Amino acid sequence: MKDFHFELQARDGEARTGIIHSPRGEIRTPAFMPVGTAATVKAMLPQNVRETGADILLGNTYHLMLRPGAERIARLGGLHKFMDWPRPILTDSGGFQVMSLSALRKISEEGVKFQSHIDGHEEFLSPERAMQIQRQLGSDIQMVFDECPALPATHAAIEKSMALSMRWAKRSKTEFQQQPEEERAGRACFGIVQGGTFADLRLRSAEALKEIGFDGYAVGGLAVGEPQSAMFETLEATVPHLPSDRPRYLMGVGKPDDIVGAVLRGVDMFDCVLPTRSGRNGQAFTAQGALNLKNARFAEDSAPLDSDCDCPACRQFSRAYLHHTVKSGEIIAAMLLTWHNLTHYQRLMHDMREAIAQSRLSDWATQYSASRQIAVPEN
Amino acid sequence: MKDFHFELQARDGEARTGIIHSPRGEIRTPAFMPVGTAATVKAMLPQNVRETGADILLGNTYHLMLRPGAERIARLGGLHKFMDWPRPILTDSGGFQVMSLSALRKISEEGVKFQSHIDGHEEFLSPERAMQIQRQLGSDIQMVFDECPALPATHAAIEKSMALSMRWAKRSKTEFQQQPEEERAGRACFGIVQGGTFADLRLRSAEALKEIGFDGYAVGGLAVGEPQSAMFETLEATVPHLPSDRPRYLMGVGKPDDIVGAVLRGVDMFDCVLPTRSGRNGQAFTAQGALNLKNARFAEDSAPLDSDCDCPACRQFSRAYLHHTVKSGEIIAAMLLTWHNLTHYQRLMHDMREAIAQSRLSDWATQYSASRQIAVPEN
Repeated sequence: MKDFHFELQARDGEARTGIIHSPRGEIRTPAFMPVGTAATVKAMLPQNVRETGADILLGNTYHLMLRPGAERIARLGGLHKFMDWPRPILTDSGGFQVMSLSALRKISEEGVKFQSHIDGHEEFLSPERAMQIQRQLGSDIQMVFDECPALPATHAAIEKSMALSMRWAKRSKTEFQQQPEEERAGRACFGIVQGGTFADLRLRSAEALKEIGFDGYAVGGLAVGEPQSAMFETLEATVPHLPSDRPRYLMGVGKPDDIVGAVLRGVDMFDCVLPTRSGRNGQAFTAQGALNLKNARFAEDSAPLDSDCDCPACRQFSRAYLHHTVKSGEIIAAMLLTWHNLTHYQRLMHDMREAIAQSRLSDWATQYSASRQIAVPEN
Repeated sequence: MKDFHFELQARDGEARTGIIHSPRGEIRTPAFMPVGTAATVKAMLPQNVRETGADILLGNTYHLMLRPGAERIARLGGLHKFMDWPRPILTDSGGFQVMSLSALRKISEEGVKFQSHIDGHEEFLSPERAMQIQRQLGSDIQMVFDECPALPATHAAIEKSMALSMRWAKRSKTEFQQQPEEERAGRACFGIVQGGTFADLRLRSAEALKEIGFDGYAVGGLAVGEPQSAMFETLEATVPHLPSDRPRYLMGVGKPDDIVGAVLRGVDMFDCVLPTRSGRNGQAFTAQGALNLKNARFAEDSAPLDSDCDCPACRQFSRAYLHHTVKSGEIIAAMLLTWHNLTHYQRLMHDMREAIAQSRLSDWATQYSASRQIAVPEN
């Protein structure tokens, strides 16, 4: 059984490229993790997700604990077997979803009581419970349980929330270490820096986490509606304080240009529902920006979606076909556009890894921005 | 350019096996044609439909004329290119859908005026228009335009409707023959026997069609709610009167045991939405009968859906996973169960072709019925 460790291979400014080694496979960084919320990357077979270039998926503790249940997945042999994804899986701790999805949540020092958004039954998540669930799922990278406050918020409110998250981080790590060693071997526990957009709180949070000691460090509480500039400034105030020999993960981000900006600022890992959710909504990311396939101008467009892409949507079909199937609400539209968007994201990560290895990321990023006529999906 | 022709290879009682040769590929009979209503076999990529063993798809004139439009598909290079299915396609004439889907239809000798079920705009279908649309789509097997009366109905009503359908069959054939010869080469036109469940009307209809002369003969107006026994009796009163050197096609049928019974009675071709629609509704056809994956008894069932099947649903996942994704409304459930059901149907056809070639279809059918504990999907 190999250990979990991060091999840093090259730096280019603040940006880095490397490999996270884990018993279930290597993760090339910078890495994008497709989101497999309920034990499926929506509208994709797992082998096809792998074909897009994904080394690792993200699973959601909150969704899986509610349905089908972590104990059930454990009895069925764990999440990897259940969803037929033998490679690494990172699970979040449920903290973010409890805040954004559940009704009637009540936060105490002990944890969070909440009602399921599926059937209203009462549930409880705490640092200990979140880590136990992630263990039952068989997760390779387990995230500490944290509180994710909504932004904007006052310094005092964010300070109080961050301090609670740091106490919970300590309890999460303690719980992780109580897992039997033969089971824990090769598995990682990541801390999550909180502190909103306040540089002093981010610094204190980073210091608190380093004091505890983690296998990787995430930046949480961003991509919740703040401007991109605030996100980048927060990264600049945070990332330099994280250990350079551990992976850095920006949670829930994001649009392609968010990811490029974060890689330039030293981030190694990303996850976001955008490529999959947009794909189901008829939106495609291309080298020239995002396209909305619902748009009538594609109705007789015989060109491929993106002539530089070799995914099935681009290789086998025209924009006119994608327009027709999106308009008709056909499942194949969700399948093809999801496949394309994940391929686009993985190609973006691949291109950045190469550019970093060749010390030309800054030039690459300038060219990348210039080539994109449209930065965000049209409506 | 090869011709369209039917090579009869073996008989076993009334049942037959053979190959329909066409420029776009061979069709092994008895054949099941998955339904690709709106230029997609729902929830499947075309290469995966082929992998299940399908030699030919069915496309719907009614759906395609409304969206995206036959003229548009013609400008985009035809239906095969549009939907990336290079093999044979049979198109229906729209007659059945006009009766079952459209609002405010008005039938005259000339044809049918109707309103689109999508946006209410007025459309018109006639024998000539139906054949023109099928030509624009580039269909390999084009069906005559017919009227499909609802059952039960009086002898007089069915007689009148059948007579109209026979006049329309003649006009359809005339229109087909006016297509330029270089375009028509290798393409076929099939007649459709009507007459409800009345043996005398079926006989008269068959004679009328033979008089016109077609490349193949369909039996229409069945599978509209009548008991299976009535369907089988109607086949027994009809099929012996059809030319034995032409393919026979039972339209819109059906459940696996309907198909077995019809093959025993001399039918060569079938289409039905059941495997695809059931797949999207959480139902699976297996060697032991149909299963409803929504059923809670599958929640922790770690067995494969059907241990004799080598489709991705059965090879890679458990019944518990299928239950979870069906219950969660995940697209992957529709993808996997559709793939499985089409695989099941194609294996059924394959097994019957082998049994006929080896003159053991009757024994095979007895065994087949005995092995199925449940004949129709549970609810």
